[in-house]
Amino acid sequence: MKKILVIGAGRSSHTLIKYLLEHAQEEDWHVTVGDMDLALAQEKVKGHSRGEAVHFDVTDPKSREREIQKVDLVVSMLPARFHHIPAKTCLQYSIPMVTASYVSPEIKEMDEEAKNKGIILLNEMGLDPGLDHLSAMYMIDRVKNAGGTIKCFESFTGGLLAPVSEKGNPWKYKFTWNPRNVVLAGQGAVKFIQEGRYKYIPYHRLFRRSEVIEVEGYGRFEGYANRDSLKYLDVYGLRGIPTIYRGTLRRPGFSRAWNIFVQLGATDDSYMMEGVEQMTHRQFINSFLSYNPHDSVELKLMHYMHLDQDSDVMEKLEWLGMFEDTPIGLKEGTPAQVLQHILEKKWALTEEDKDMIVMWHKLIYELDGKETFLTSSLVVEGDDHQNTAMAKTVGLPLAIATKLILNGKLKLKGVQYPTSPEIYHPVLEELKKAGINFVEKEQ
Amino acid sequence: MKKILVIGAGRSSHTLIKYLLEHAQEEDWHVTVGDMDLALAQEKVKGHSRGEAVHFDVTDPKSREREIQKVDLVVSMLPARFHHIPAKTCLQYSIPMVTASYVSPEIKEMDEEAKNKGIILLNEMGLDPGLDHLSAMYMIDRVKNAGGTIKCFESFTGGLLAPVSEKGNPWKYKFTWNPRNVVLAGQGAVKFIQEGRYKYIPYHRLFRRSEVIEVEGYGRFEGYANRDSLKYLDVYGLRGIPTIYRGTLRRPGFSRAWNIFVQLGATDDSYMMEGVEQMTHRQFINSFLSYNPHDSVELKLMHYMHLDQDSDVMEKLEWLGMFEDTPIGLKEGTPAQVLQHILEKKWALTEEDKDMIVMWHKLIYELDGKETFLTSSLVVEGDDHQNTAMAKTVGLPLAIATKLILNGKLKLKGVQYPTSPEIYHPVLEELKKAGINFVEKEQ
Repeated sequence: MKKILVIGAGRSSHTLIKYLLEHAQEEDWHVTVGDMDLALAQEKVKGHSRGEAVHFDVTDPKSREREIQKVDLVVSMLPARFHHIPAKTCLQYSIPMVTASYVSPEIKEMDEEAKNKGIILLNEMGLDPGLDHLSAMYMIDRVKNAGGTIKCFESFTGGLLAPVSEKGNPWKYKFTWNPRNVVLAGQGAVKFIQEGRYKYIPYHRLFRRSEVIEVEGYGRFEGYANRDSLKYLDVYGLRGIPTIYRGTLRRPGFSRAWNIFVQLGATDDSYMMEGVEQMTHRQFINSFLSYNPHDSVELKLMHYMHLDQDSDVMEKLEWLGMFEDTPIGLKEGTPAQVLQHILEKKWALTEEDKDMIVMWHKLIYELDGKETFLTSSLVVEGDDHQNTAMAKTVGLPLAIATKLILNGKLKLKGVQYPTSPEIYHPVLEELKKAGINFVEKEQ
Repeated sequence: MKKILVIGAGRSSHTLIKYLLEHAQEEDWHVTVGDMDLALAQEKVKGHSRGEAVHFDVTDPKSREREIQKVDLVVSMLPARFHHIPAKTCLQYSIPMVTASYVSPEIKEMDEEAKNKGIILLNEMGLDPGLDHLSAMYMIDRVKNAGGTIKCFESFTGGLLAPVSEKGNPWKYKFTWNPRNVVLAGQGAVKFIQEGRYKYIPYHRLFRRSEVIEVEGYGRFEGYANRDSLKYLDVYGLRGIPTIYRGTLRRPGFSRAWNIFVQLGATDDSYMMEGVEQMTHRQFINSFLSYNPHDSVELKLMHYMHLDQDSDVMEKLEWLGMFEDTPIGLKEGTPAQVLQHILEKKWALTEEDKDMIVMWHKLIYELDGKETFLTSSLVVEGDDHQNTAMAKTVGLPLAIATKLILNGKLKLKGVQYPTSPEIYHPVLEELKKAGINFVEKEQ
């Protein structure tokens, strides 16, 4: 029997744990789910005969060593900054570990020791990073192996609402993932390469430089650039490519409206505001506008931002209640923290909401003098508030990688992320059977 | 005989050293000028019988202790981050020190020891900080002592070109002070209080929120807000004041044009650009614009920034040569470093240029039910490229404070900045005689 420890029983662990328990009989697995909140772990295990819920505090060395020592593989679903703690213990006892987070400097340093111990520390095995790597490398390698030259690579991912849940919401958006990351998205300068030229976009222009993407059956989306596309030159072996661009998808109109918060300075996370405890939504917006007791907050905003009264942007802001004299309900906070708190009043998912993941890649390559335009798109809708598209697309790649490692089918050692055929072929194949299927189109 | 050591013989030390040498006979002083560059120190001392030039490296403990030990007072004109080094040595030998820089955390910590040793470490004794404190407190204390209630305090300072040197320069501006500080000015969020409300301006909106100020005989200026006006609530004893605002002066039109660099991201100092060595001015601008091989850089910029072809902003950019295919001439750099390098080609002062300092305060106070609007303004023009307005307004307050300390007329001990009548009265009085005279107007 193989023993698995899943650390972290939050929302994104749902599908992962479900998969592991559903396959536990057939694969002869025992699955321990550890969380600071024992009830949460128990809720996920649901009394399964091959499952076990334990209280787990990663910062407590005793219980950490006790639980990790017992198992054959660890899946860490902790926030990214904590992974290096269980990873150290995994190294100590020569136990492989899988995460859905970017390789951190601390994890990177463990490469040699992991290789010496003969184990894999597999990272970036969720959705983004994860599925994006798998599907991109599947396209890139095929073109390269056929002798093609890649001239452009663009890749966009969005965690969105399923169309059925978009209705009545002018943003067609809610928080389906870490709200703080959504509020702070794009801060710092954006870098990419277009037709061989390095291009830079400062944060305060980012949301006015979006491009439109159409996905068959799902209509139009807009994409704004992610912070650093340049690091993918090496990750994907694309040095010398004339155009590389990675971005985030939203429904059209989102960026134009979000830009108002950026322009106001309402996404700034660098200082604490004064008097947040007494502040209302309306006063929050007013604190970024010039003083004039005779003009309304609405008029000052429209004038400052060159908005028409009947613009969709004003409708979106009104829908959020930004102009209402509703108390914020926070004791203190940075502008970004206050904004997040206000947004959560409208953008928190309800039990009825269904989410949706959209991923879209574009590759332009030249082969035998012919230029081909290849797109690959994926849409996954959530089933309900637990079996979300996010939980599925994060959890299934993790779960399948876990199976491959335990079955000895993944022989890579050391610190890895999933860009080699040894990983992406079997994972993409099984994902396809589970309905997570990329649709390719050539022009 | 009293001995003085001036550390740093750069441009801003000119008037300071000149004053000390001119008064050396009458006051029985001996003035040592130390600099890493001995020739520069010699040039300032000019073989004066009561002067001496020495090679001085503040980071070398031996020569530092040797030179400081000998004297009765040290004036440090080093870059702000170095002051704590001679200050430590001054404490060791119980020698007072004067600087023109903000009190740093390291200096602040020396307060108790300085008091125990019975010496003063006097900071912020130049122009800004310096003259601004002296002149502001002179107004504020008078109003308070008369029983008035201050409702608004605004204060603006600008290092500019004298009108005679503005001609043919559409910016009416050159670097009269540290160019790097000018390029990075305003980065981070700006905070102030207006009519009792805290107001915040993000960096990328700062240069569109300027206000116009008129100084008799010198015409109109515009002011944009400095980063943190709020710290002056305590410095000037103004807690509870409804409006406080500090800013920087330029000629009208400067901010609108400078804003283009901010909007492009060309003042970003957070990352190194690619390929700077091969880059031209035109390519620098183009790296912030979207890719389109068929459109000119000018047209892309005008469209992106909503500029008319015949706008004064385009004229200002063209005058700087921003669209020329001139090599930048740097091996590497951040956008801010590249921009500074390009600007220095046009904005470096020539020997013919004369500079000008403008300082302007506004106080609104209520006394006996009557509201009074009081302004105080100062304009100082430079005489030539050595006797600049900047050197005069930085150097004279330092020199006068030095005299007061050596004559035993300034009895304050510990870490100080010039906000008390004991300092501002005698300094302002002597400055007046030297033609540095604030003009007050009441309405």
